[in-house]
Amino acid sequence: MEHDEIRVDRQSLELYCQRIFQQLGVSEENAATASKVLVAADAWGIPSHGTGRLWRYVNGLKSGQILSGAPFDIIAETPSSLVINANGAMGAPVSVKAMEMIIEKAKANGSAFGCVRDSNHFGIAGYYAKMALRENMIGIAMTNTAALGVPTFGRQVMYGTNPLAFAAPADKEEAFVLDMSTTVVTRGKVEVYERLEKELPAGWAVEKTGKPARDARSMLDDMQNRVGGGILPLGGMGKELGGHKGFGLAVMVDILTGVLCGASFGQQVYDTAESSARVSHFFGAIDISRFRDPGDFRRDMDRMLGEIRQSPPAEGEEQVYYAGLPEMERERENDRLGIPLLKKTYDSICGIGREWGIRFSQER
Amino acid sequence: MEHDEIRVDRQSLELYCQRIFQQLGVSEENAATASKVLVAADAWGIPSHGTGRLWRYVNGLKSGQILSGAPFDIIAETPSSLVINANGAMGAPVSVKAMEMIIEKAKANGSAFGCVRDSNHFGIAGYYAKMALRENMIGIAMTNTAALGVPTFGRQVMYGTNPLAFAAPADKEEAFVLDMSTTVVTRGKVEVYERLEKELPAGWAVEKTGKPARDARSMLDDMQNRVGGGILPLGGMGKELGGHKGFGLAVMVDILTGVLCGASFGQQVYDTAESSARVSHFFGAIDISRFRDPGDFRRDMDRMLGEIRQSPPAEGEEQVYYAGLPEMERERENDRLGIPLLKKTYDSICGIGREWGIRFSQER
Repeated sequence: MEHDEIRVDRQSLELYCQRIFQQLGVSEENAATASKVLVAADAWGIPSHGTGRLWRYVNGLKSGQILSGAPFDIIAETPSSLVINANGAMGAPVSVKAMEMIIEKAKANGSAFGCVRDSNHFGIAGYYAKMALRENMIGIAMTNTAALGVPTFGRQVMYGTNPLAFAAPADKEEAFVLDMSTTVVTRGKVEVYERLEKELPAGWAVEKTGKPARDARSMLDDMQNRVGGGILPLGGMGKELGGHKGFGLAVMVDILTGVLCGASFGQQVYDTAESSARVSHFFGAIDISRFRDPGDFRRDMDRMLGEIRQSPPAEGEEQVYYAGLPEMERERENDRLGIPLLKKTYDSICGIGREWGIRFSQER
Repeated sequence: MEHDEIRVDRQSLELYCQRIFQQLGVSEENAATASKVLVAADAWGIPSHGTGRLWRYVNGLKSGQILSGAPFDIIAETPSSLVINANGAMGAPVSVKAMEMIIEKAKANGSAFGCVRDSNHFGIAGYYAKMALRENMIGIAMTNTAALGVPTFGRQVMYGTNPLAFAAPADKEEAFVLDMSTTVVTRGKVEVYERLEKELPAGWAVEKTGKPARDARSMLDDMQNRVGGGILPLGGMGKELGGHKGFGLAVMVDILTGVLCGASFGQQVYDTAESSARVSHFFGAIDISRFRDPGDFRRDMDRMLGEIRQSPPAEGEEQVYYAGLPEMERERENDRLGIPLLKKTYDSICGIGREWGIRFSQER
């Protein structure tokens, strides 16, 4: 643990966030769900999506960019499909609800898929994909996001970080949980380089002419002003390292999230000073028992994942990991020792509650 | 058209390949299907998967590595799922059959998925994904392949090029058809560098210690001898450019193809002198009409894809493309002008038929 981190009790942290969301008009049930998803990111070791974002959610709820009391409407439903309009609500509660409904449908139907439209930031995609595992299912979750990605050979943002998550259960091994943005990096990583005034690595971003960007500040400014420049797809610049593949994956996510339910996609998804981007999500579940005995599946997964984990590391590396293993190991450790928060995150969240006299029980 | 290319009539080329497959004991129907898929690769401008491989299929059928008369067995089936054992047959005919069955299931059920196990090389994954479009469905196709990919931080091959294909229909625009290996490049591209004695680009492959490989020949030899070294996942070396994401995608494909139907996966999938790798495929179809009016979906796809196509190119580039657009444009041109074959491919395929007195009608 780094010495600028403070460990706090998971349930206390969840309860504290919940009380703040409730104070802002979110129902008890939805506030509890939103807090669970937010804190899970810290527990998994993904602080970019954890309580360090609490102030953003609070600001969104205060300004009405996120609507605390919005009911969600089912606008299309069959035994295999679901389309929900979130009407501008918080992303996590409606997403958990959607994934639960899709899992129930997949139990009866074998597989099921659904979209949530007019939603907001839903946290870590892997959380929803992982929900399917307890029912011996494969889980899928995706979301589009505000446009910041530049197509291969292009220079204007046309899509978001558009993460996709895929989870499959194992037996004794930790589950396989892939949760990845389809851009080479997220905006947050570029912002770190901006703060450090470090030159951007080749293959991360282009400036407004479409040439490789080295200065994070000017790239972020140009992107913000929509004059060109942005982050590259997974695979980087051009086609030599497969940038066109990452670009294709990002568009795939935009089709399944935005186009499939008739919501915004591509350039239409962007934050303004007045409003946050209304994003869409896609969820899916596939029942393993329709293909083979789930116990046998889990044992084969153990073998596959064990072989990867035990495969010889490259010189200078310690260990080969599969997707989800570091996160699940960190979650176990953090549940034992407490959820690690950066000092500045700890200070920020303690400050947020003071406005309403809500005190974080772990405050020192 | 390059001057070492010869253009031939598509149907004549299909018929010629079909006659050769029939000569080797493949049924008329299966031979016709296998030829159509093979020639489609040339028509789309993907010669690595086209008739330049005819000799490999012929050698496989002659040696019994591919079983010309193998019947396929349905080993699991529900309204939403299908598992077929190909019993070592050619990959394409059983894959077309499987995808047709899955499309029919998705019509009734909303979505359906299936695996084909104990199969052989099935050609271009995009062919099967694209089949779903005519029924207003989203199509998915994947396959595992002989292991040649090295995990992030590893040095031993643990998975194949593991391509995934995803297709979604548009109206006036060409359909979106993503068909990508999840490794940064395929073996074929490394072999080109070997022949040219060119240094491999950084981020393509590692040598047996897990350090970046620059010499294609020694990397390929070490990989063949299974002493370490191999091709990197999409995103390249380490995590800086997202190599762990490409690795995750490759494992996802291996789970859906190999593990989901109880077949071989990972290191177990490899070619030997005696036998080609028995691979598994995964296919899926999702009915768009369960989510929204397919006509509206297609019109929104037109808008999305048109915006990408018309987005400003980077300095020095001419055009931004979306996945599938170059292939579909090439197919139209090639159907008009004839399928372009490299001179050496043309000579090779003309030679193959002579053994049985089968003459290519386009032979000059």
